[in-house]
Amino acid sequence: MYRTHTNGQLRATDINKKVTLAGWVQKTRDKGFMVWVDLRDRYGITQLIFDEERTPKEMMETAAQLGREFVIQVTGTVIERESKNPNMPTGDIEILVSEISILNKSLTPPFTIEDETDGGEDLRMKYRYLDIRRKPVRNNLVFRHKVTMAVRNYLSKKDFVEVETPYLIKSTPEGARDFVVPSRMNEGQFYALPQSPQTFKQLLMVGGMDKYFQIVKCFRDEDLRADRQPEFTQIDCEMAFIEQEDILNTFEGLTRHLLKEINGVEIGEFPRMQYDDAMRLYGNDKPDIRFGMQFGELNPVAQHKDFNVFNTAELVVGIAVPGGNSYTRKEIDKLIDWVKRPQVGALGMVYCRVNEDGSFKSSVDKFYDQEDLAKWAEVTQASPGDLICVLSGDTHKVRAQLSTLRMELAERLGLRKANEFAPLWVVDFPLLELDEETGHYHAMHHPFTSPKPGQLELLDTNPGEVKANAYDLVLNGNEIGGGSIRIHDKKTQAIMLKHLGFSEEEAKAQFGFLMDAFEYGAPPHGGIAFGLDRLVAILGGQETIRDFIAFPKNNAGRDVMIDAPAPLDKEQLEELHLKLDL
Amino acid sequence: MYRTHTNGQLRATDINKKVTLAGWVQKTRDKGFMVWVDLRDRYGITQLIFDEERTPKEMMETAAQLGREFVIQVTGTVIERESKNPNMPTGDIEILVSEISILNKSLTPPFTIEDETDGGEDLRMKYRYLDIRRKPVRNNLVFRHKVTMAVRNYLSKKDFVEVETPYLIKSTPEGARDFVVPSRMNEGQFYALPQSPQTFKQLLMVGGMDKYFQIVKCFRDEDLRADRQPEFTQIDCEMAFIEQEDILNTFEGLTRHLLKEINGVEIGEFPRMQYDDAMRLYGNDKPDIRFGMQFGELNPVAQHKDFNVFNTAELVVGIAVPGGNSYTRKEIDKLIDWVKRPQVGALGMVYCRVNEDGSFKSSVDKFYDQEDLAKWAEVTQASPGDLICVLSGDTHKVRAQLSTLRMELAERLGLRKANEFAPLWVVDFPLLELDEETGHYHAMHHPFTSPKPGQLELLDTNPGEVKANAYDLVLNGNEIGGGSIRIHDKKTQAIMLKHLGFSEEEAKAQFGFLMDAFEYGAPPHGGIAFGLDRLVAILGGQETIRDFIAFPKNNAGRDVMIDAPAPLDKEQLEELHLKLDL
Repeated sequence: MYRTHTNGQLRATDINKKVTLAGWVQKTRDKGFMVWVDLRDRYGITQLIFDEERTPKEMMETAAQLGREFVIQVTGTVIERESKNPNMPTGDIEILVSEISILNKSLTPPFTIEDETDGGEDLRMKYRYLDIRRKPVRNNLVFRHKVTMAVRNYLSKKDFVEVETPYLIKSTPEGARDFVVPSRMNEGQFYALPQSPQTFKQLLMVGGMDKYFQIVKCFRDEDLRADRQPEFTQIDCEMAFIEQEDILNTFEGLTRHLLKEINGVEIGEFPRMQYDDAMRLYGNDKPDIRFGMQFGELNPVAQHKDFNVFNTAELVVGIAVPGGNSYTRKEIDKLIDWVKRPQVGALGMVYCRVNEDGSFKSSVDKFYDQEDLAKWAEVTQASPGDLICVLSGDTHKVRAQLSTLRMELAERLGLRKANEFAPLWVVDFPLLELDEETGHYHAMHHPFTSPKPGQLELLDTNPGEVKANAYDLVLNGNEIGGGSIRIHDKKTQAIMLKHLGFSEEEAKAQFGFLMDAFEYGAPPHGGIAFGLDRLVAILGGQETIRDFIAFPKNNAGRDVMIDAPAPLDKEQLEELHLKLDL
Repeated sequence: MYRTHTNGQLRATDINKKVTLAGWVQKTRDKGFMVWVDLRDRYGITQLIFDEERTPKEMMETAAQLGREFVIQVTGTVIERESKNPNMPTGDIEILVSEISILNKSLTPPFTIEDETDGGEDLRMKYRYLDIRRKPVRNNLVFRHKVTMAVRNYLSKKDFVEVETPYLIKSTPEGARDFVVPSRMNEGQFYALPQSPQTFKQLLMVGGMDKYFQIVKCFRDEDLRADRQPEFTQIDCEMAFIEQEDILNTFEGLTRHLLKEINGVEIGEFPRMQYDDAMRLYGNDKPDIRFGMQFGELNPVAQHKDFNVFNTAELVVGIAVPGGNSYTRKEIDKLIDWVKRPQVGALGMVYCRVNEDGSFKSSVDKFYDQEDLAKWAEVTQASPGDLICVLSGDTHKVRAQLSTLRMELAERLGLRKANEFAPLWVVDFPLLELDEETGHYHAMHHPFTSPKPGQLELLDTNPGEVKANAYDLVLNGNEIGGGSIRIHDKKTQAIMLKHLGFSEEEAKAQFGFLMDAFEYGAPPHGGIAFGLDRLVAILGGQETIRDFIAFPKNNAGRDVMIDAPAPLDKEQLEELHLKLDL
């Protein structure tokens, strides 16, 4: 027993108790005749005191020599502090130390172990074990645990069963790239790590498990973008004998429970928005609806004059920036430069000030009169004092650009409040998505998603128009969950795979087991998967998932702490029947 | 909404309710004028009734044509059964069907979906999704979920935090073989899948997480033995600022909680046995103590006569088989043949009957008189009616042989009762183990295990004698958990790695990050890991772990359902900069 109490535990009611504590030296203050030490562990900080009147000389010297992050054990008496610290739970007391033992010394840490550290990202990642000692990082990990326990207990009580599906599965060329695992026992063959347990959870439904969930690692060998991890965690769920409505209700219930239990926020019924409306009103299938600034489509009121930029555009679309009329000309110019950066990609931006007196002043006054501009204001719901920002061009691109601008402006205006939560369902996603590079359609959700009833026939004539029984749960501008009702008969699945470009042989080789399973009494089923890393970050009021992962990888997919990946021994490669081909 | 109730839900109190049910056709009985259908889902079976008086003709025909495993939805009225079935929770009622809809047909399943099936192991694995529809398999999976929830909630309440550690880590040549994962983004380099999160959980302790657990998949590329899986699940735990006693108490608490909550069995304090005693008394470091038959070492009372077999043996050791005197000569001869099989490997067996009158009759009466044999009986604690079985030879081998015989006889005598639980701690394991093939010592637990205080010096002179702060939790003859107090200073870790044959460079390359971490204030720490698959099987009163895994692999490491592993596309190999070398 190294301690009788933790460092977050002792209070004024414990005064006069003899206690033993252990932990890390957060800091020491040495006044010569008196030494104070802040002793830290996961649970808090307790102040130790040594003074020349009551502490033996030798121990005073030991105390004075304690370095930051030394691990010590002390025994002493809880006494009342002279100057109390109301900001610390243990701030009323301190420990008059009678025994001290240095359990382990520490080199000077490469960055300060404080809430605000002087360590840069790279250094903190290399010494992640020291970073985790910092309260904000530790709290994030504890928070993550709290969220996963809440998820598990909620779903368990609703009769969901957590079933572990295998990690060593089969590679499928569809979707993102798989990580693969050479099999030594089966020469020349490979397992793949799952991008998701999709087919297995569907097989569990065929197997009658009825309600399944799993909090599970998934793997994608993608060229990493910022804040993407090659391994990530999903709350993976599936139900049988359900319709879309049942799924939405069940997982709206889960999300509402989490917001209540974790954040203390009560949310009523979640709004539902059609995919087409989300794209039209927010240019985005994961709109942040904590604030307005909805898109106004201006084609009818902006394409009747001689302004060729608008007249030749597929879409002219604007947003009203609340209070944006206060921007100086210089600020607006900077904004225009911002939207023209390659990361956004707009060719330019038209703006229109809405003056307090209701008059308008636009960058295209040459073409549009006050009456025209009044209509723009009406369509974009602009009020006096606002600034209307208008982009134009190809619908797909211009929506994405204006959406980026909308989010940026909201961020600058402080409208994206971390402690405010605005969930919504986006429903009726298209089944297929055109890959503009290849000209081929691929599954927007995945190849197992069911088209809406009666729309299967459209696949031949108008594939882009087919709607799916697919839905996303969006929270504060982030997709936190996505799912669909699945195909559950072999014929439909075969048609679907054919349309996705699989030959009959390929379909059989890759998904034969699933289609066979559909012939033995597959029930109607569907599900959803939540991205746990992001969900936890958002509930935690943050957006960087890396801060909620104990040992994240960097943007090159490397773990810089353990220095992985790394070359293999020659013998290991030989055993696997592999040669490098560099 | 496909159903108003599940098939396990309706009771006599629901009579006259109109309900909608969905599920699988378990079986139909067609009397012509009346058809009964057993409708099954995860929750139970409800009987449906169609009769020519009350059911429209067309629906009678549909009912008569339902095949096994068809998925149907019915609406009807709950009525009282004529002949009740007291063995079914829903046995008082049946559903008079008014609407029926076939949701999906089924081919005739390749084996019967009943508690006892006619399907062989291979067939059941290929169609595992059908096997899971069988109640015993489904119940095992639900049971597993119940156990993991109990573990998580218990540990959470004790302030343990579940932290996810990475799956893509670095290969270490120590221990079993790693599965490796080629990195596309880091050419020629590989990740490894973890054999356990050992180093990461230790880093979490260095990081001040204090109490960690994780239910986590681990991977070992071993030549598979029966009932071993290449991927398996661990309950992985670690604590800081603790001594061995704290770990034993904490996880004895967890195990006691599980036995109570899951099995309804109250167990007092777990016995503790030294490794040396376990080997001496049971020939085994995971003794099944549900029954006696302890070893009696007979050297002093068997090596004083002219029987050379014993005189030249390192160890002469026997067990008393309760009631074994009833074995016929033929039965004993068969037992002798059994111990001489290569799987056991004994050269022969000496036996001694203990007659009801207290006299003895042995196979070596030529050498030993009644007085000698009485001493054998005393040492092996044999009573009248027992049979003493004696093996002799090399201590290490003969203990293993007699242990195998002991377990086999206990099995035959029905002493290994599935609903009886006898946990114990085996403590004070040796630090190192001699590999008889290579003559080298390797770590018995793992290279991070701490030697007992003051024994480090013995490493140079008498490495086999060094005891470790290592312990196993044994339940009914199975190791269900094992752990140790870890080394937490760089110097000791370096000495340990040197003794295990690592050069300084190798030690640095493989474990440099851990030894560096030890220099920044590592606290004393230790932990334990439970094999979840086996724990669940034993709590479930069974011994085959495969029955508690949703999608197990076969003994060749293959998933025969999805047919993995499988060859890769040429393009995939090229992207990974790999060539096959077959």
